[in-house]
Amino acid sequence: MYRRRQVKVALVWVFLFSLYSMAMPQNAALRSGAENGYQDIAEKIIDTALEQRAAYEMLRELTQEIGARLSGSPAAAAAVEWARQTMERYGLQNVRLQPVMVPHWVRGDVEEAIVVNSPLVGTRPLTICALGGSVGTPPEGITAEVVEVKSFDEVRALGDRARGKILFYNRPMDPKQRNTFAAYGGAVYQRGRGAVEAARVGAVGVLVRSMTTRLDNVPHTGGMRYEEGVPEIPAAAISTVDAEFLSGLLQAQGSVRVHLRLSCKTLPDVLSYNVIGELPGSVHPEEIVLLGGHLDSWDKGEGAHDDGAGCVQSIEALRLLKELQLQPARTLRVVLFMNEENGLRGGREYARQVKASGEKHIAAIESDRGGFTPRGFTVDAAPEVLEKIQRWAPLLRSIEADQIRSGGGGADISPLKAFGVPTLGLLVDSHRYFDYHHSDSDTFDKVNERELELGAAAMAILGYVLAMEGLQ
Amino acid sequence: MYRRRQVKVALVWVFLFSLYSMAMPQNAALRSGAENGYQDIAEKIIDTALEQRAAYEMLRELTQEIGARLSGSPAAAAAVEWARQTMERYGLQNVRLQPVMVPHWVRGDVEEAIVVNSPLVGTRPLTICALGGSVGTPPEGITAEVVEVKSFDEVRALGDRARGKILFYNRPMDPKQRNTFAAYGGAVYQRGRGAVEAARVGAVGVLVRSMTTRLDNVPHTGGMRYEEGVPEIPAAAISTVDAEFLSGLLQAQGSVRVHLRLSCKTLPDVLSYNVIGELPGSVHPEEIVLLGGHLDSWDKGEGAHDDGAGCVQSIEALRLLKELQLQPARTLRVVLFMNEENGLRGGREYARQVKASGEKHIAAIESDRGGFTPRGFTVDAAPEVLEKIQRWAPLLRSIEADQIRSGGGGADISPLKAFGVPTLGLLVDSHRYFDYHHSDSDTFDKVNERELELGAAAMAILGYVLAMEGLQ
Repeated sequence: MYRRRQVKVALVWVFLFSLYSMAMPQNAALRSGAENGYQDIAEKIIDTALEQRAAYEMLRELTQEIGARLSGSPAAAAAVEWARQTMERYGLQNVRLQPVMVPHWVRGDVEEAIVVNSPLVGTRPLTICALGGSVGTPPEGITAEVVEVKSFDEVRALGDRARGKILFYNRPMDPKQRNTFAAYGGAVYQRGRGAVEAARVGAVGVLVRSMTTRLDNVPHTGGMRYEEGVPEIPAAAISTVDAEFLSGLLQAQGSVRVHLRLSCKTLPDVLSYNVIGELPGSVHPEEIVLLGGHLDSWDKGEGAHDDGAGCVQSIEALRLLKELQLQPARTLRVVLFMNEENGLRGGREYARQVKASGEKHIAAIESDRGGFTPRGFTVDAAPEVLEKIQRWAPLLRSIEADQIRSGGGGADISPLKAFGVPTLGLLVDSHRYFDYHHSDSDTFDKVNERELELGAAAMAILGYVLAMEGLQ
Repeated sequence: MYRRRQVKVALVWVFLFSLYSMAMPQNAALRSGAENGYQDIAEKIIDTALEQRAAYEMLRELTQEIGARLSGSPAAAAAVEWARQTMERYGLQNVRLQPVMVPHWVRGDVEEAIVVNSPLVGTRPLTICALGGSVGTPPEGITAEVVEVKSFDEVRALGDRARGKILFYNRPMDPKQRNTFAAYGGAVYQRGRGAVEAARVGAVGVLVRSMTTRLDNVPHTGGMRYEEGVPEIPAAAISTVDAEFLSGLLQAQGSVRVHLRLSCKTLPDVLSYNVIGELPGSVHPEEIVLLGGHLDSWDKGEGAHDDGAGCVQSIEALRLLKELQLQPARTLRVVLFMNEENGLRGGREYARQVKASGEKHIAAIESDRGGFTPRGFTVDAAPEVLEKIQRWAPLLRSIEADQIRSGGGGADISPLKAFGVPTLGLLVDSHRYFDYHHSDSDTFDKVNERELELGAAAMAILGYVLAMEGLQ
């Protein structure tokens, strides 16, 4: 009887514990946050961010006083100086410029694509813009028949029929994707490699449907590449509305001729800089937790979401900690990278210097998905590192930014992965990003103050805990 | 030994179950969704919403072709007819207008507030707009000294010192609130009851800081009330930027005089309508699941988020089910209510008729928090009803709209609570709503297509499951 009773009691306890576990699935995580006293700190960081609105004011300066800042441009130099002064103004330490040579592509004055000799519409201009890195056309332009394609398989199948033609890549981003970055990933190869694949079969130019799920008349630029040994042909983005128009005209007429004229070109490399500032660690100043974004943008709009937001959030994260007199045990470093958009030279140079100096990076966090409502962080690291970071999720619960899951960190910090550095990316609500991305629509007025500030707060919280706790 | 082994085995199983419960906290809920075959239906509804974009096109018509549609205005009549035709066009059944008499307040041509005889700024206009329902001033306006207050306690403490003054309510919405509706709730009493409290102590007018956390120069209108036996004094909203200015001027000068002139007035009631359409139930057509929003708006902007979004989402929810040939067991009814903003006459009349007819409502869902990324639903019902609805949350997980929690349903459906009807509200990301709410900024271009469509999909999914499963 005694043993039986013991058993029953044990079973009841285990059952109760199992109920408790069901009711409080995050219990272990909650304890870990609370027990270290970080919850109060987290709430204070959030309060201060929402009250002081400093990131929003910084973004106003960067976007409205400087604006678009393509690598190699005078505006990019202005952005570097603005970043340096802003870090000094907020009392960051060891503020410095890290030199890096960057590509210097310029759009020039002329970009036009015109439907010519159409039996249905006569002469009609199409809304386009050159893709970043594209060569220009001859000054008189090129005129060629357009062939619509939706995959590289189709391009290869065209074979000789592509010779002398302008290939028109018209696979839309899939609107059914729940996350727009997945939709982007399923279409952006057309922009990146479309010219190379087209040139291989003898095409003389490419038009690429803009990377957005919106139907509007705004072209979206973005990076494209050439390949050694393959002819370099001009490449432009066409607005989604005109992509639909051109596709319809092709169906109606069978054959459509387009005159394409671009004056863009690549000039010699230019000296530019990553901008760096720090809150030095009190215990292990030699161990670094990096927060960053990229300072360059395309030459369209104001680079507000891409990636002005990430830059000001990174500075603001450190400003918030300083404001609240929270000195981290390890060094928190903000790095604003140059040239993410068309070269990643800043990210590569930073990693090269880390390798040369042997500097120890605990983790790197990038914000480069726009200044939208934060949802959490993606983590590119070993499963046990992900698990450790997940235990801090409750600190982000009051702003519903507590999703910590496996996923990419960010382009600029990706070269650090080679040295085993865990990289993290600020995860945000994705629905609006590609409405604006790389286009004239990416302006300051598209950014909501609260959403931007909450992203900065989330970075400050996770950055601070990483700098206090490390990842051992 | 045998018993001991049995016990061990039992303990191991219970332990494994407890681990499993921890790892899969939503397991019971997931099963409930999957086992009824609703998960596939839910995903199909979401896919179709994102692909067909019909809600967005409806909203374009309602906001850009009709625009603002204050109760009693010609535009409100146009909106009623638009709604009727749109429901017919999409094949809803029993489309009908439910008559209701509504208030008819008009803004008129004149609204101005001017700082006069200021030693510091001379004469300076303030950016204001009359609050809905306010009386006008005499044609020549009123000129009075301004007294700043932040609470009704302060107003009462003023006592006789308020006599002949214009009271300036300047308590901001608390930016630290994680949800902006909580911030609104903490400040909006100034707008609703400010004039009554001011008149009780002899004030001759009120200026109320606009209900937004933004600092900008756009005034936000909204409803205000008078009270039997208390003098009716004119009331206007002042932009947050000019509220800050006025407050600063008061501090600098001690005394500030403002000239206020408003031409607004209330005309006799006007006949208007709720607009109703249905997907009749195949098994219990007499049992209703209601989806709705309000068709009227303020006379500022285009009433895009408030509440064009809720109207088109409600219609779209039924259109999606029809499109996918999903006939519900119970009747799904869309009701677009008239006069939520300044009277709730539509909601009250609808409830009166429900009472008169004895019609059975299983549940009512309103969307009236703007067309932003859906996060889930708030439920105003008994705990067991909330629990039942929570079991369907996994159906909304792929779009991260699976928060089902206790909270208000919506103003228009609130009178149904008296008959024990569970009311639900579409829960959305709240950060941007009060940037636009009741102001010239509430326009179509502020609505993101995907966010709007996902809200419609969420309503379609929950509405359909409610109509199939009931709440017994």
